[in-house]
Amino acid sequence: MTNPNTSQQKAVVVGAGLVGSLWAVFLARRGYQVEVYERRSDMRAAGYFGGRSINLAMSERGWKAVEKAGIREKIEKVAIAMPGRMMHSIAGETTFQPYGKEGQAIYSVSRGGLNLELLDIADAFPNVQFFFDHRCADVDLENPFITFEDLKTKQMKTVEAPLIFAADGAFSAVRYALQRTDRFDYTQFYLEHGYKELTIPPHADGSHRLNPAALHIWPRGNFMVIALPNADGSFTCTLFLPFEGDTSFANIKTDADVLAFFQKYFPDAVPLMPTLVQDFWQNPTSSLVTVKCAPWQWQQRILLIGDAAHAIVPFYGQGMNAGFEDCTILDAMIDTLQGDWSRIIPQFARQRKADGDAIAELAQRNFIEMRDLVADPKFLLRKKIAARLHERHPDFLPVYSMVTFSNTPYRTALLEDDAQNRLFEKILALDDIENDWDGPAVEQTFGQWMMRR
Amino acid sequence: MTNPNTSQQKAVVVGAGLVGSLWAVFLARRGYQVEVYERRSDMRAAGYFGGRSINLAMSERGWKAVEKAGIREKIEKVAIAMPGRMMHSIAGETTFQPYGKEGQAIYSVSRGGLNLELLDIADAFPNVQFFFDHRCADVDLENPFITFEDLKTKQMKTVEAPLIFAADGAFSAVRYALQRTDRFDYTQFYLEHGYKELTIPPHADGSHRLNPAALHIWPRGNFMVIALPNADGSFTCTLFLPFEGDTSFANIKTDADVLAFFQKYFPDAVPLMPTLVQDFWQNPTSSLVTVKCAPWQWQQRILLIGDAAHAIVPFYGQGMNAGFEDCTILDAMIDTLQGDWSRIIPQFARQRKADGDAIAELAQRNFIEMRDLVADPKFLLRKKIAARLHERHPDFLPVYSMVTFSNTPYRTALLEDDAQNRLFEKILALDDIENDWDGPAVEQTFGQWMMRR
Repeated sequence: MTNPNTSQQKAVVVGAGLVGSLWAVFLARRGYQVEVYERRSDMRAAGYFGGRSINLAMSERGWKAVEKAGIREKIEKVAIAMPGRMMHSIAGETTFQPYGKEGQAIYSVSRGGLNLELLDIADAFPNVQFFFDHRCADVDLENPFITFEDLKTKQMKTVEAPLIFAADGAFSAVRYALQRTDRFDYTQFYLEHGYKELTIPPHADGSHRLNPAALHIWPRGNFMVIALPNADGSFTCTLFLPFEGDTSFANIKTDADVLAFFQKYFPDAVPLMPTLVQDFWQNPTSSLVTVKCAPWQWQQRILLIGDAAHAIVPFYGQGMNAGFEDCTILDAMIDTLQGDWSRIIPQFARQRKADGDAIAELAQRNFIEMRDLVADPKFLLRKKIAARLHERHPDFLPVYSMVTFSNTPYRTALLEDDAQNRLFEKILALDDIENDWDGPAVEQTFGQWMMRR
Repeated sequence: MTNPNTSQQKAVVVGAGLVGSLWAVFLARRGYQVEVYERRSDMRAAGYFGGRSINLAMSERGWKAVEKAGIREKIEKVAIAMPGRMMHSIAGETTFQPYGKEGQAIYSVSRGGLNLELLDIADAFPNVQFFFDHRCADVDLENPFITFEDLKTKQMKTVEAPLIFAADGAFSAVRYALQRTDRFDYTQFYLEHGYKELTIPPHADGSHRLNPAALHIWPRGNFMVIALPNADGSFTCTLFLPFEGDTSFANIKTDADVLAFFQKYFPDAVPLMPTLVQDFWQNPTSSLVTVKCAPWQWQQRILLIGDAAHAIVPFYGQGMNAGFEDCTILDAMIDTLQGDWSRIIPQFARQRKADGDAIAELAQRNFIEMRDLVADPKFLLRKKIAARLHERHPDFLPVYSMVTFSNTPYRTALLEDDAQNRLFEKILALDDIENDWDGPAVEQTFGQWMMRR
């Protein structure tokens, strides 16, 4: 079906979000005739409106992908380095925790801004065509065709699609079509927490009201606020809170409730958010879904990538990075398998699935970690010991660094997380560990653990 | 929205399978105006064809439901008692293992035969109307309407539906509609095994070729054949086998392969199956799905029941029984909550969900048990010790009996299974347990376990 290495080969990309746009760039650079279909209107004309998305934290995997796509410099312009997180206690004390070594950082980018940039870059290729306001209406599983509804004309349009890359997100229409096929495993699972976007505007002079060189976190046990800096001097904030229960979105019903809740738990943030109450009611409360499925392919011509294959919760800052890494890995396979999609698609779907599942699991684990950072002394003790072990044994890399500052497969990082959890279970069970956390018993336990690896 | 206890209240049942038909009977007996919509043609006119379904094993929960519906006697006519299982070794030796106490049995019924019977019983009520060849095309989530496509006229028909019971099976169209709503958790998960129906016809004189008072099993480790007796002297057999791999459906490609496979692993069955090769190619290879979802409801007017809410693998013989028990429990709630569906639907959806998840888990565990019965000496030892403990301590009920011969909630049975697994982990770790399996050490371990309950 595929004709390796022909530069006139056609590829259909469903979805012009972050991953769809970036993947269009990769394909365009290789000479494919790329058609990108997107349900929404062109955000460059319609304008991008926030209120529904968490700011993104670009890290190594994301950078590697945009670099490979030849567009790193353009993206760097819209990114702000966050070398660490700034923890805010209820009393208003702040503690800065570096994410990695000197010089390492994650980068705040606005989803909208990044998407606009990627659309422009992709659209500049003569062999990329965008079709906005096109809803995927039907996927022909027998023949290489796909049908879109032009939402402006209400016309149905069936196009030839020898290769389909479904980058249409967590609620992928292409994946819904595959879901009805025999032996397609599928899970969608929602957290009991929702999120709401809020904002900290800049000072009158355009400067940031908080240190912009950090990801700010107000962890409060079962809920939290985070804030990521924007280039315009503002911060995009996100409140994560259970939908139901004692302290929950359901129990915040009036303007006074909003203020009382923030005054009680985030007193230092309230003066920074002059539009807090309006934002709270104007912005939707969104849910947090994890999606897993298998296989990520249909025959050798349809491939799910990005959130369509592996939507995850945002607590490791890896959603976009994982999707971008899909592009890097797929692109490398074009070389190693000589552009033979009948081999690339099954191999990618099979190999990459384990990484998608792994980062989904790590992201769920990190949610608990982020919420509970302040609450659990055992956890803080673990962090302290881990940092000391890393000082003494530089090979003992924190899992966070492996995920964020390396391109080590996610599946390897998950195995490492399991292994380190077993190590710290032993260490934290040592006698008088609270006081004797830096003594020979810890070192001995660590040594035994390393030896058995 | 609901008008408690009005005898003219309308209820729409989607699906005229086993659970839909039985639930229509329950509703009809209470005076509801019942409309049942079914995608397939009326099997009473079209004829019922086998080849796609495992025979069913009716047990206590199923009997309780049909008794409560007032139709037990009619169902008894089509059921054959199977007081135990007959294990067939490769050498052709048979061992009979009773399922429970003297007088206890599970009952073989043909899915088609039972469904025909239930349709007739439901249809005899003047306040039940069946609409066959009606495919659920759209569920209005805002207003109490549902749309069906009449597959004969291709006309769309929207009907008022203040109450919808979705009994439309593992691939429920109503559930697919709910799946797109926010915060609907959903999982479909396929076993790597498929199944194929085969047949053992009766002797020329109409008698059974095997003892009809048993469920026959040919366990072979990773695959097996089972056979359930029919009233006409035949047995419905099912081969469970991995789709892919060394010994798999994929590797059986020719008539000779079929015969060689059966000669090698099921030599005593081959002479009983004169149409083996034809059946093998004619009958489809079907897959085995587990479905879990939450919530089972939409607002207070749509409820998923039966496989639509909790499709499970067939290895505990509880799929139909669980669906029928849904009816029993729902019917009881009509009394306790005075027909107030705005309370019945949320309460049922919440409470019964734990039971659906529990029987799904138990069914998956039983698959491993059934396949490996012969292969694992530890397992046989466990069975032997369990039987002896039950003799000496009649309160120590096997989980199989709790599931099959009682109406104890499935969730309780699952907890019991976990607890007994922990007990036998301890017992099987005792010194020289292979020889000293009936000594004081076992009794002492058991005593300690019972005390801590």
